[in-house]
Amino acid sequence: MLVAVGQVSLQVGDLEGNRARGVDAILRAVADDAELVVLPELSDSGYVFASREEAYSLGAPCSGNPTLQRWTALAARHRITVVGGFCELGEDGALYNSAALIVPDRDPLIYRKLHLWDSEKEFFTPGDSLSPVGEVNGVRVALAICYDLEFPELVRLLALQGAELLVVPTNWPRSPVPEAERPIEFVKAQASAAANGVWMAIADRCGSERGVDWVGYSCLLNPNGYPVFTPLASGVAGVSIGEVHPAWARDKAIASRNHLLDDRRSDLYRVLARSEAQGEHWDQGDPSPP
Amino acid sequence: MLVAVGQVSLQVGDLEGNRARGVDAILRAVADDAELVVLPELSDSGYVFASREEAYSLGAPCSGNPTLQRWTALAARHRITVVGGFCELGEDGALYNSAALIVPDRDPLIYRKLHLWDSEKEFFTPGDSLSPVGEVNGVRVALAICYDLEFPELVRLLALQGAELLVVPTNWPRSPVPEAERPIEFVKAQASAAANGVWMAIADRCGSERGVDWVGYSCLLNPNGYPVFTPLASGVAGVSIGEVHPAWARDKAIASRNHLLDDRRSDLYRVLARSEAQGEHWDQGDPSPP
Repeated sequence: MLVAVGQVSLQVGDLEGNRARGVDAILRAVADDAELVVLPELSDSGYVFASREEAYSLGAPCSGNPTLQRWTALAARHRITVVGGFCELGEDGALYNSAALIVPDRDPLIYRKLHLWDSEKEFFTPGDSLSPVGEVNGVRVALAICYDLEFPELVRLLALQGAELLVVPTNWPRSPVPEAERPIEFVKAQASAAANGVWMAIADRCGSERGVDWVGYSCLLNPNGYPVFTPLASGVAGVSIGEVHPAWARDKAIASRNHLLDDRRSDLYRVLARSEAQGEHWDQGDPSPP
Repeated sequence: MLVAVGQVSLQVGDLEGNRARGVDAILRAVADDAELVVLPELSDSGYVFASREEAYSLGAPCSGNPTLQRWTALAARHRITVVGGFCELGEDGALYNSAALIVPDRDPLIYRKLHLWDSEKEFFTPGDSLSPVGEVNGVRVALAICYDLEFPELVRLLALQGAELLVVPTNWPRSPVPEAERPIEFVKAQASAAANGVWMAIADRCGSERGVDWVGYSCLLNPNGYPVFTPLASGVAGVSIGEVHPAWARDKAIASRNHLLDDRRSDLYRVLARSEAQGEHWDQGDPSPP
């Protein structure tokens, strides 16, 4: 499956302009014969909200949502699956940082971001369930959004549920990175792709917004955790495309006797489902061999 | 705390020579004023065993173990904590891929590798418990060995137990790495250090052994996941040293409203403690919004 990531310039509040730039990226992906295209997080509203009121004013329900309708029409016309983030006003009146996966001729699948970053906690309600895993052109696809990806537990859970390709709309705010190092957000994505043997298509944004710049690094990672093409440069809009081979992600065997998932010591991982830290301790006064 | 990593050349079966090269690395760390030094995995026996019999013939019990005795004497004499891997013949008759943490004037703390790589599964019995977390010169230290580090669950668990510095004896067999990329083992280590806000001191080995070469990349990582000094080159013996500040690892707050551990959605992580994959699925015939 040919998968494209669109690094798109967005401006908070410019719903029509943002939508248009997203459509441009989709059409570029179509021109490159992509079967699936990923757009950034909150690609309709922009990201750097000044207030809760502003955030709510830019949200729209799924039903009748002009961005989802546009993506749905393009998906149907061009036989391409569209993935993108949008600002969802829920039927419950809460605001969600959501993403849609729109397969031609199907209802959109909606995922609500589980792990909220910084002031998102003021504006958004976190989702309450993992992304389901669905088949698109023979590839099992699941969604995650931005900060979600920094929790190795989440990627592991999606791999355990059978995801072969993780599609990740993101808005990575740029912070200082040591010389000759990659942004750690990208390093974490590489590690999670490799630890779980999954493909990962990440679409970040560009376009300075209220003083915030973005990491860029939109990319497709293979199940070894390496980029399929050079990650997109920070600050530059663009669409890049690469090929996903689901069979590689299905085969979790490594070396001759190892398996990425079966080698887990789940007998020892129980505490991960508990909210509080606990465990065995020893200190200077109490040495204890096993 | 000044922490040194020793990248040491080893040869399978050369117990005395390997021990001597480990001692050299410890003394170089002492000369650099290190307070803790990490040596590679199986630094007494070597790694590429030809048979189960050979592996057993190179194992020794903890009690009266000449390698542990040597490290203990050096720790006491030079007031340095020594960490290193060794081939442990258990009191139960099983062979373990173990590591010792030897604080001056204390009994060694022994950890047995939990996740076994490739033919280790033929020779070794996996451990059955996590490394305890102990205080060394004001820093809370825990152990992991090589392939252990590729399970993000393990590093998370040790961080939840309060580890601030993970000490990691390793033998990373070298495999092809795309041009301009880092070995993925190192990328995974970076990601786990950053995801958990812990320091990580990794000591890999060098010295071609029965056709196997090693990644190298012995390094100290900071809680942002970045190297404190340039990772040691593949194939080259050496000792490098860096400074660990435990306060940084104690503070898990990031940005103004986020926390590396508290932001986990442990309510959704339960399945990580189950041995089988399961979860919600949808497919082409069954679209389902949340």
